Amino acid sequence: MSMIKKAIVLLSGGLDSTTAMAIAQSEGYDLYCLTFHYGQRHARELEAAGRVAAAFRAKKHLVIEMDLRPIGGSALTDNIDVPKGRNERDMQEEIPVTYVPARNTIFLSYAMAWAEVLRISDIFMGVNAVDYSGYPDCRPEFIKAFEHMANMATKAGVEGLTQLKIRTPLISMTKAEIIKKGLALGVDYGMTHSCYDPSPEGNPCGRCDSCLIRKKGFAEAGIPDPLEGRARAKIT
Amino acid sequence: MSMIKKAIVLLSGGLDSTTAMAIAQSEGYDLYCLTFHYGQRHARELEAAGRVAAAFRAKKHLVIEMDLRPIGGSALTDNIDVPKGRNERDMQEEIPVTYVPARNTIFLSYAMAWAEVLRISDIFMGVNAVDYSGYPDCRPEFIKAFEHMANMATKAGVEGLTQLKIRTPLISMTKAEIIKKGLALGVDYGMTHSCYDPSPEGNPCGRCDSCLIRKKGFAEAGIPDPLEGRARAKIT
Repeated sequence: MSMIKKAIVLLSGGLDSTTAMAIAQSEGYDLYCLTFHYGQRHARELEAAGRVAAAFRAKKHLVIEMDLRPIGGSALTDNIDVPKGRNERDMQEEIPVTYVPARNTIFLSYAMAWAEVLRISDIFMGVNAVDYSGYPDCRPEFIKAFEHMANMATKAGVEGLTQLKIRTPLISMTKAEIIKKGLALGVDYGMTHSCYDPSPEGNPCGRCDSCLIRKKGFAEAGIPDPLEGRARAKIT
Repeated sequence: MSMIKKAIVLLSGGLDSTTAMAIAQSEGYDLYCLTFHYGQRHARELEAAGRVAAAFRAKKHLVIEMDLRPIGGSALTDNIDVPKGRNERDMQEEIPVTYVPARNTIFLSYAMAWAEVLRISDIFMGVNAVDYSGYPDCRPEFIKAFEHMANMATKAGVEGLTQLKIRTPLISMTKAEIIKKGLALGVDYGMTHSCYDPSPEGNPCGRCDSCLIRKKGFAEAGIPDPLEGRARAKIT
């Protein structure tokens, strides 16, 4: 009799979280997906997350409604323009306005709560410290500190029942490596969504940091982006 | 010219958070209150939080709507009965069903986000490790781990602009000491709300852990609880 392994996956519907989910599945985990509707301007992400969860036959997909807009401070939730056409050096040198204060901490806190209720010890997350767009809460030091804190915070941790592990399989991969890994696992990246500022029809802008990083990743992997193909088809 | 000192206060409307707020004010901080409406059954807390924020002339009072019910796992958000009439030993020996998984972690994560946006470095919180009702996320080890994680997670922390401090002035005080401290600072505890399971009219049940701890605190302080007086008046 084999043990059923369960994992929570933080799923945004983007390229990275979808790949992290494919990796969790390839390791034999049943998937419990957690998505946040946090007042982000690009709610297209949510549709992508739903498509991905269904395609992977997730056991459960929980969408948490929360409103980060009263807190403000980010181009993704506030009335600040999403920067366009930045070069790589700009992206790496400063923390961009698309950074949402404490976002990953808030997301992981909810995941930690759900993990405790479901008695799950593995949380998969698609953070990446290479092509990471300068967000402080995507660094390994942050993940390690969160894990330590989580094991101090929960009933399961204190009683020694479960030690929470934040699994970040993409953390030291380049975007091209992530894409190749996902394709090897059969991911259809046409389901995913990356753009911070899509058109009303859901087409990627092609010029925000997220689009530019994605474009570079596919170029370096030497593979066409199925999404770009579709976007072009819609535009012309 | 004096610097304006600002603090975020996690305000539930209960006895502890109200006292923590009085301490922050006595230290000269302008108060930015943060309250959560998280699907708790005792929404009376929210009214108390509003009264307290107004009485202390808080600069701002942000109420964050969020729904912890889909995550479940607690008598405060789920269909589990709130335990009544437990003795002190029961309360200390096990983590009660009123524990909300990862609640303080989630609350502090939002506070951390707001602190970053407002460039505030002090967050006051009324957690207490003495009469603490057995919650793992009220212990000093947890607070310390959170503080470390927070300084890894934020733009302000990474850029060295602000080091976040979680201020827990009540952490090693007994309930009686907390009450005496608050009264010395002029707190009217008649504004506060502690019961986990109030009547539809908002009267405390008098028998849940929170009511029992409060009752014991006032008894040990040798002071009548203004709330109990009012509740009785309403009942008779």
